[in-house]
Amino acid sequence: MAHIELPPGLPGIVGPLTFSPDTAKPMLLLAETLLRGPNTLTSGEREMIAAHVSYRNECTFCQLSHSAAAAAHLDGNYDLVERAKTDPEDAAISPKLKALLAIAGKVQESGKKVTAQDVERAREQGATDKEIHDTVLIAAAFCMYNRYVDGLATWQPQEREAYVEMGQRMAHEGYGKRPAER
Amino acid sequence: MAHIELPPGLPGIVGPLTFSPDTAKPMLLLAETLLRGPNTLTSGEREMIAAHVSYRNECTFCQLSHSAAAAAHLDGNYDLVERAKTDPEDAAISPKLKALLAIAGKVQESGKKVTAQDVERAREQGATDKEIHDTVLIAAAFCMYNRYVDGLATWQPQEREAYVEMGQRMAHEGYGKRPAER
Repeated sequence: MAHIELPPGLPGIVGPLTFSPDTAKPMLLLAETLLRGPNTLTSGEREMIAAHVSYRNECTFCQLSHSAAAAAHLDGNYDLVERAKTDPEDAAISPKLKALLAIAGKVQESGKKVTAQDVERAREQGATDKEIHDTVLIAAAFCMYNRYVDGLATWQPQEREAYVEMGQRMAHEGYGKRPAER
Repeated sequence: MAHIELPPGLPGIVGPLTFSPDTAKPMLLLAETLLRGPNTLTSGEREMIAAHVSYRNECTFCQLSHSAAAAAHLDGNYDLVERAKTDPEDAAISPKLKALLAIAGKVQESGKKVTAQDVERAREQGATDKEIHDTVLIAAAFCMYNRYVDGLATWQPQEREAYVEMGQRMAHEGYGKRPAER
């Protein structure tokens, strides 16, 4: 049972977002901008960063929903997403994304854990300042979303299958309109 | 030196927010809504929650700036803010705020650490569902802001005095306009 009375039947973050529309608006706009806004990182790559951080925070709803969104961006390649999420150094992803996932993993523990060497490694693999910035912020933002979902003890389906459609909607319809599209 | 090239001379989060205006907008709106929006918790109480979480995350910029903002809401009572930030159970604050700060401290570690007992304690001291929700979200959001500031290795003045004016501006002018005021 959730720690507070949330609208019934809504999984994970959807309950608290519906409970509190004033805070939902900037939280959704931030997710939309970070994960689907114009970027040299693909949305699939950015969703893998989100899924990796959520996996490290052990947030069932966020890791399964963002894995599903990543897979939806990657022609349904769940195996790749699963590997990138749980064991990025061994995944069939670019050396740049490996370096960015390593930075994201440090941010999940604490911002202070990110070293100049971590950043240098990403830069050597071609990462730009904006890509490093966005990786740090995606990882930091999911430390918020994960705590919001778990800190209120929301209802979270446990099976991957429950998230397939949700992931497709997240990937193709997004998290809310960006300002330029309104 | 910061991990990426940020606009020079801007302390803490101000550098990355200026570097990335698209993400700054929702991040500032979220802070404004959480810390200065209409609420049964005072802004002073909410800034103390922000300062406590930032202290636990050892983020110099955020803990000193939000301590200064809290003090600005409390007639400059830095001693009270310092005690609430570092040792809330012994501070001269309400039993309800002590219970909410205990929840915020759990969220700082992980959302999963918040127990039904933590929430029951807050409720017994008169906390509403919205106050519990907002406490969890303020704590979660500062786990994001703190990681953003430290994960990019931003420049952070170390002395409390450097934050007094900034805190007054944060308290009285805020973090950006709420939609209703635009």
